[in-house]
Amino acid sequence: MIVRNKPNAFQLFFILRGSIVPLIYPQIIFVTLLGAAVAAGHYYYPTLFPSFSLPPLALLGIALSLFLGFRNNASYDRWWEARKQWGQLLIDSRSLSRQITGYVDGEAEGGAAAQRRMIYLTIAFNHALRHQLRKTEPWNDIEKYLETEDIDALRQSRNVPDALLRLMSKKLGNCRHKHLLSEFLIQTLDDRITSMAEVQASCERIQNTPLPFAYMLLVQRTAYFYCFILPFGIVTSQGFFTPLFCAIVAYTFFGLDALSEELQDPFGIAPNDLALSAMSRATEINLLEILGETEFPAPIEPTNHRLE
Amino acid sequence: MIVRNKPNAFQLFFILRGSIVPLIYPQIIFVTLLGAAVAAGHYYYPTLFPSFSLPPLALLGIALSLFLGFRNNASYDRWWEARKQWGQLLIDSRSLSRQITGYVDGEAEGGAAAQRRMIYLTIAFNHALRHQLRKTEPWNDIEKYLETEDIDALRQSRNVPDALLRLMSKKLGNCRHKHLLSEFLIQTLDDRITSMAEVQASCERIQNTPLPFAYMLLVQRTAYFYCFILPFGIVTSQGFFTPLFCAIVAYTFFGLDALSEELQDPFGIAPNDLALSAMSRATEINLLEILGETEFPAPIEPTNHRLE
Amino acid sequence: MIVRNKPNAFQLFFILRGSIVPLIYPQIIFVTLLGAAVAAGHYYYPTLFPSFSLPPLALLGIALSLFLGFRNNASYDRWWEARKQWGQLLIDSRSLSRQITGYVDGEAEGGAAAQRRMIYLTIAFNHALRHQLRKTEPWNDIEKYLETEDIDALRQSRNVPDALLRLMSKKLGNCRHKHLLSEFLIQTLDDRITSMAEVQASCERIQNTPLPFAYMLLVQRTAYFYCFILPFGIVTSQGFFTPLFCAIVAYTFFGLDALSEELQDPFGIAPNDLALSAMSRATEINLLEILGETEFPAPIEPTNHRLE
Amino acid sequence: MIVRNKPNAFQLFFILRGSIVPLIYPQIIFVTLLGAAVAAGHYYYPTLFPSFSLPPLALLGIALSLFLGFRNNASYDRWWEARKQWGQLLIDSRSLSRQITGYVDGEAEGGAAAQRRMIYLTIAFNHALRHQLRKTEPWNDIEKYLETEDIDALRQSRNVPDALLRLMSKKLGNCRHKHLLSEFLIQTLDDRITSMAEVQASCERIQNTPLPFAYMLLVQRTAYFYCFILPFGIVTSQGFFTPLFCAIVAYTFFGLDALSEELQDPFGIAPNDLALSAMSRATEINLLEILGETEFPAPIEPTNHRLE
Amino acid sequence: MIVRNKPNAFQLFFILRGSIVPLIYPQIIFVTLLGAAVAAGHYYYPTLFPSFSLPPLALLGIALSLFLGFRNNASYDRWWEARKQWGQLLIDSRSLSRQITGYVDGEAEGGAAAQRRMIYLTIAFNHALRHQLRKTEPWNDIEKYLETEDIDALRQSRNVPDALLRLMSKKLGNCRHKHLLSEFLIQTLDDRITSMAEVQASCERIQNTPLPFAYMLLVQRTAYFYCFILPFGIVTSQGFFTPLFCAIVAYTFFGLDALSEELQDPFGIAPNDLALSAMSRATEINLLEILGETEFPAPIEPTNHRLE
Repeated sequence: MIVRNKPNAFQLFFILRGSIVPLIYPQIIFVTLLGAAVAAGHYYYPTLFPSFSLPPLALLGIALSLFLGFRNNASYDRWWEARKQWGQLLIDSRSLSRQITGYVDGEAEGGAAAQRRMIYLTIAFNHALRHQLRKTEPWNDIEKYLETEDIDALRQSRNVPDALLRLMSKKLGNCRHKHLLSEFLIQTLDDRITSMAEVQASCERIQNTPLPFAYMLLVQRTAYFYCFILPFGIVTSQGFFTPLFCAIVAYTFFGLDALSEELQDPFGIAPNDLALSAMSRATEINLLEILGETEFPAPIEPTNHRLE
Repeated sequence: MIVRNKPNAFQLFFILRGSIVPLIYPQIIFVTLLGAAVAAGHYYYPTLFPSFSLPPLALLGIALSLFLGFRNNASYDRWWEARKQWGQLLIDSRSLSRQITGYVDGEAEGGAAAQRRMIYLTIAFNHALRHQLRKTEPWNDIEKYLETEDIDALRQSRNVPDALLRLMSKKLGNCRHKHLLSEFLIQTLDDRITSMAEVQASCERIQNTPLPFAYMLLVQRTAYFYCFILPFGIVTSQGFFTPLFCAIVAYTFFGLDALSEELQDPFGIAPNDLALSAMSRATEINLLEILGETEFPAPIEPTNHRLE
Repeated sequence: MIVRNKPNAFQLFFILRGSIVPLIYPQIIFVTLLGAAVAAGHYYYPTLFPSFSLPPLALLGIALSLFLGFRNNASYDRWWEARKQWGQLLIDSRSLSRQITGYVDGEAEGGAAAQRRMIYLTIAFNHALRHQLRKTEPWNDIEKYLETEDIDALRQSRNVPDALLRLMSKKLGNCRHKHLLSEFLIQTLDDRITSMAEVQASCERIQNTPLPFAYMLLVQRTAYFYCFILPFGIVTSQGFFTPLFCAIVAYTFFGLDALSEELQDPFGIAPNDLALSAMSRATEINLLEILGETEFPAPIEPTNHRLE
Repeated sequence: MIVRNKPNAFQLFFILRGSIVPLIYPQIIFVTLLGAAVAAGHYYYPTLFPSFSLPPLALLGIALSLFLGFRNNASYDRWWEARKQWGQLLIDSRSLSRQITGYVDGEAEGGAAAQRRMIYLTIAFNHALRHQLRKTEPWNDIEKYLETEDIDALRQSRNVPDALLRLMSKKLGNCRHKHLLSEFLIQTLDDRITSMAEVQASCERIQNTPLPFAYMLLVQRTAYFYCFILPFGIVTSQGFFTPLFCAIVAYTFFGLDALSEELQDPFGIAPNDLALSAMSRATEINLLEILGETEFPAPIEPTNHRLE
Repeated sequence: MIVRNKPNAFQLFFILRGSIVPLIYPQIIFVTLLGAAVAAGHYYYPTLFPSFSLPPLALLGIALSLFLGFRNNASYDRWWEARKQWGQLLIDSRSLSRQITGYVDGEAEGGAAAQRRMIYLTIAFNHALRHQLRKTEPWNDIEKYLETEDIDALRQSRNVPDALLRLMSKKLGNCRHKHLLSEFLIQTLDDRITSMAEVQASCERIQNTPLPFAYMLLVQRTAYFYCFILPFGIVTSQGFFTPLFCAIVAYTFFGLDALSEELQDPFGIAPNDLALSAMSRATEINLLEILGETEFPAPIEPTNHRLE
C-alpha cells in the first residue's frame, strides 16, 4: 500500500512509486514510436495513408471504455472486499480476546494459561492466513505462539489456518471440561471462530477465483486494436503532435488496465496491494496488549512511502 | 474456469481457449464479408450507396452500449453471487465438521461413528449439489459416503441434496436421543444446516431464473441492426479498410454479448463457468482431513489451462 | 417468465412472445410514418425543413440514455429482489418443514397431526401470498390445507397471509402446551415464521411502492421529444432511409422503456414477470414430499415457452 | 406518493401533479427567453455572436451528465433505503404483535391488558416516528394509545419515539416480574425492539445528513453554465428553433436535478415523497386487527392521485 | 458538514463556504491564464498553433470521465459508509442503555451505580472514538465519565476506545458476580459491545486504507493533460472565449476531483466531512436523558452554516 500525502502539481508528474507507469512503459513507448512513424510517413508521403476519419475510433472508444470501466469496478470491489475481510478479522480477533479475558475465569486453576493459549492461537491465525494468501512459510512468525506438541500436527496439515481454528475449538472444549466456561458462553466464543472461518474462506475465494479470463482478453485486445489504429486516425489533423497524443491515450487506457490487473489480486505484494504484514503485526500488538504483556514487536512502518 | 498467467502481447492475439472468439466467429465472418462487399460496391459504383453519415450510428451505439453494459453487469453479478454461494458452502462444511469433531463426544459409545456419518453426509451434499446444478447423476460420487439403508430412500427423492439435509437433521436428532449432544448445541449445528439449505436454494434460483428473455432480444437485435448498418456508414471515409473495422467492432460487441450469455448461467461447463468439480473435490479432501483420514482422492488440476 | 433456448439469428427477428414489440408497435409505427413524411417532404421541397444539424440530438440522447439506464437498473433491481424474496420463502418453507419433522416428536400423541398441520399451513402461506400479490382469490388453492374451523376466521381477515402466520404461531403455542416442543426450539421455529413475515412485507413494499411517478414522466416525455425531432435531424443526410433509422431508434428506446415498466411490477402476469404459480406449486410438491405423502399435484410446465 | 395508472401519450404531456415542471418552470422560461433573444439577435446581426461550435458544449455535457447521474443515484438510494426502513418497521410491528399475542399468556391475570398495552405502544411508535420525521406534533395520533401516567413523562422527552421504546422495555420487564413471560422469550421480544431502534436511527441518519452540499453546488452551477452557453452554441445551425431546443434541454437537466432534490429528503410532503401517513395508518389497522378489535380508523386513500 | 437551505439562483454563484472553489482556484486561474495566452497568441499569429481538431480531446474526455466518475463513487461510498457506522454506533449506544436501565436491577444494592457506570462508559466511547479518528486528545471530554482508578490504566493504552470496550466487559462481569444480571442477559449486552467494536474497526479501516494511490495519479495526471491541451483544441473555433471555456471545464473536472479527495477521508474537519462532534454530543445528551439526569451540555449548533 502506498502511503503518502497528496503531491503538488510538479511532483505529480515525476512520482514513479505507486504509479502504474513502470508496468506499462513498453506499451507507451511502442505506441509513441508508432505514432512518430506514422507522423513522419504522413509528412513525406501525405497520400500514403488513407484519410481515416476519427468517428470509427469513437465507436471503438465507447466499447473500450465500457470494458475498462467494468473491469476496474470489479477489480476494485475485490480489493475492497478483501480489505473488509481483514477488517472483520480484526473485529473477531479483538472481540474473541476481550471475551476470553472477560469470561474465562482467570483466577481458577489453569484459567490464565487457557486465556493465553487461546489468544496466542488467534495471533497465530492472523499470521498464518497472511502467509497462506502470499504462499510463504508461516513458521517463523507463528512458532513462538504454539505449544510444542501442536507444531508437528500443524506441519502435517494442508491448510494451516483451518487447522489452527480447529485447535482453538479443541482448547475451548478443554475449557468446558475444566468448567472454566459454561456451555452457553462456549457458543458465544464459537461464533467468533466461525466468523474467522468465514474470513478465511472469503479470502481464499478472492485468491482462487480470478475475474473470468475472457474479460482480460476482450479488454486487452480492444486496447491494442485501438492504439494501433489511433495514429492513423489523428495524423491528418494533428501532424507531428500525433506521438504526444498517442502517448497520453496509451497511458490512460493501459494504465487503468494495469491497475485493474494489480488490484484484482489484492493479497500480493505489488505496490497497490493490501498491507497484510502491517495489519497482522498491528493485530499482534493489540492482542498482546489485551493479554497484559509489556513487550511488543515493533509495528511495521512504510519504507519509501510503501507499506507491505 | 480458465487458469493461466497473463499472456504477453504476442500470445494475446492467438489464445483461443477461454476466448469468446470460437462462439462468435460466424458473426464476425459475416460482418466482415458484408463490409468487404460494401467496400467493393462502393469502389466500382461510388454512387450506389447513399452518403450515410456516421452520427446516426453513434445514436444507436449509445443505446447498444447501454444494453450491453447492463446485461454484462447483471450476468457478472449472477456469476459472482454463485461463486459466493459456493464459498459459503465451504464455510458451512468446514464449520459444521469442526463443530461436530469438537462438540459431539467422540469417546462415548457410537460417538465416533456419529461424527463420521455427519461429515460423510456433508461431503455427499457438496457432490450432490454440483450434480443437481449440472443435471448429472450423483451416485458414483456419493454412494461411498452413504449408508446402504439410506441409498434407496434417496433414490426415490426428487431433490437429492434437500433429502440429504433432512437426513442430517435426522442423524442429529439421533445424537440428541443418545445424549451425544445437548439441545443447545443441536441448535448451533442446525444453523449450519439451514445455511446449507440457503446455499442450495440460492443456486437453484440462479439456475432456474434466467435474465428476462426480452433483454436478450433487445441486445441481440440492436447488435445485428448496428453491424448491418455499420459498413454503409463508414465506407465513404474508410474505403477498403471497412471490413477490418467491421471485424473489430463485431468482435467487441458480439464478444461481450456472448460472454454475458456464458456467465449468466455460471453452473454449466463452458470455459468461463465455475470450477464446481474442483471445488467440491477440494472440500471433500478438507473434510476427510478433519475426520483424520489419511487417504484422499487426488485434487482436480487444470487440463490445458482449464479447470472444471 | 419466458423459458426458451437461445434462438438462432434468423428466429431472432421473428420472435414475438416475450418480446417487447407488441407493447410498443403503435409508437414504432407512428415514428416510422413521421420519418417517411419528413423524408417525402424533404424530397419534394428540400428547403421546407430547416437544416437541423445532428449535435443537439446527441445532447438530448445523452440525457435520455441517462434516464433510461437509471430506470432500467432500478426496475431490474426490483424484479431481482422480488425473486430473491421468493427464494427466501422457499428456504424458510423447506427449513421450517425440516425442523418440524425433525424436532416435533412425531410419535407422541398428536405429534404427527401437529406436524401435518404446520406444514399444511406453510403450503397455504405460499399460495396465499401469491394470490395476495396478484389480487386473486386464494380459497381454491388453500382450503384443502386448512381446518374447517380456521377457514371462517381467515375469511374475515383483511390480510390472509399475515393471518396464516399468526395461526402458525398459535399452533406452535399449542405444541408447547402439549410438550411436543421445548421453549428453546419454539424460538428456532419462530425465527422461520418471522423470516416469512419479512418476505411478505418486502413483497408488499415492492408491490405498493412504484418508482417515483416523476421518473416515468421524465423518461417518456424525453423519449417522445427525441423521436419527434429525430427525423428532422437526419433527413438531410439519410434521405429515404430516414424512416428505417427512426424505426430502429424508436424500437431501442421505447423497447427498453416498456421493459422497465414491465419489470418494475414483477408480480403481475406479463410475459417477463416472475413465475409465481410455478414456484408456489413446486414448493407445495417439495413440502408434501417432506411430509411423506405420495400423491402430488402436477408441476406447472411452460405453455408456449411461457411459465406463469 | 403519486398513485396513478400509466397515462396515454396525449395525457403524458399535460400531467402536472407529480411532474417536476411546477418546480422548474422559472428556469425553463428563462432559458427559453434567452434562446429567443439569441435567435433574434443572430437573425438581425448575424455577425454579432462568435461562431461557437458545438463540441465544447459536448465536453461540458459529459461532465454535467456525470454529476446529474451520480446525484440522482445517490438520492434514489436514500429514498429507497427510507422505504425499506419503513418496510422493516412493518415487519417488526407485525412480528412483535404476533409474538405478544402468541407467547404472553393472555389468560393469566393482567395478561390481556399487558398484550393490549404493548401493541398500543407499538402503534404509537409508528405514529410518533412519522411525526418526528415530519417535525409535527404527535399527540393527537398517539394519546389514545397511551396511559395517562405515561403521557406527562413522554411530553418531557426530547425524543418521543425513543422514549416509547424505553417504555416498551419497561412494560416487558413488568411482564417478566409478573411471570407472564420467561427470560428466554424476553430476549426474543427485545430483539424486535432493538430492530425498531435501528429503523428509527436509520431514518434520523437519512434526515439529518443531506448529500454533501458541494455536490449541489457543482451540479447546479454546471447546469446553469451549460444552459447559458447552449443558445450561442446552436443558434447558427438551428436558427429560430433555438428556443425550442433550449426549453427541452433545460427541462431534462433541471428536471432531473429537481427530482433528485425532492427524493434526497424522502420524509417530506412533496408529491414524490413517501406516503408515511398512509403507511402508519395501515400498520395501525393491521395491529388493531391482530388485537382482535373490531373498530378501525379509515385507511388513507389517495386524493387527486396523491397519497400522503 | 454544511447545513443550509437551497440557495436561489443568484446566491448560487457566490457561495464559497462548502464550495470546492477555495481548494482549486490555483488550477482554475492557471488554466484560464493559459487559455488567455493561447487566445492572444492565436490572434496575433494565427499560424502559430497547429490546427488541432477537437476529437482527440473527446477521446481523452471519455477516459477522464471514467476515472473521475469511478473515484467519486468510491469516495462517496466511503463517506456514506462512515456515516452509517456512526448511525450504528447511535443504535448500539441507545439500545445498550435501554437494556441496562431495563434489565440491570436498579433497586438492588449497587444496581443504580452499575447502570450509571456502564452508560458513562458508553458516552466516553463515543467521544474517544471521535478523538481517535481525528487524532486529538480525548481526555477533556471523557475524564468526567471515568472513575479515577480507571483513568491511569486508560492513559497507558495505545487504543483508548478499544480499552474502554474491555472495561465495559469487565464491569459487565462484575454485574454477573454480584447477580445483578443473569448469564443469559450478559450475552445480549455483550452483543452490543461486539457491535461497537465492529463500528470502531470499520472506522479504522476507512481511515487507514485510502483509495489506491495509483488512482489519484491516474486521475490527476489525466486532468492536467486534458486542461493543458484544451485551449489549443478550442482556440480556432472559440477565439477570445477560450479562457472562459477553460475556466468552466477546469472548475468541473478539478472540482469533482477535489471533492472526491475531501470525501474519501470523511473523519477530517474539512467543510464536507462528517459532523462527528455534533453527533457524539447528541448521543451524550440522549444517554444522559436515559439515565434520568437533568443537566445536559448544550448541543452543538452550526456556525456560519457549518456543523463540525
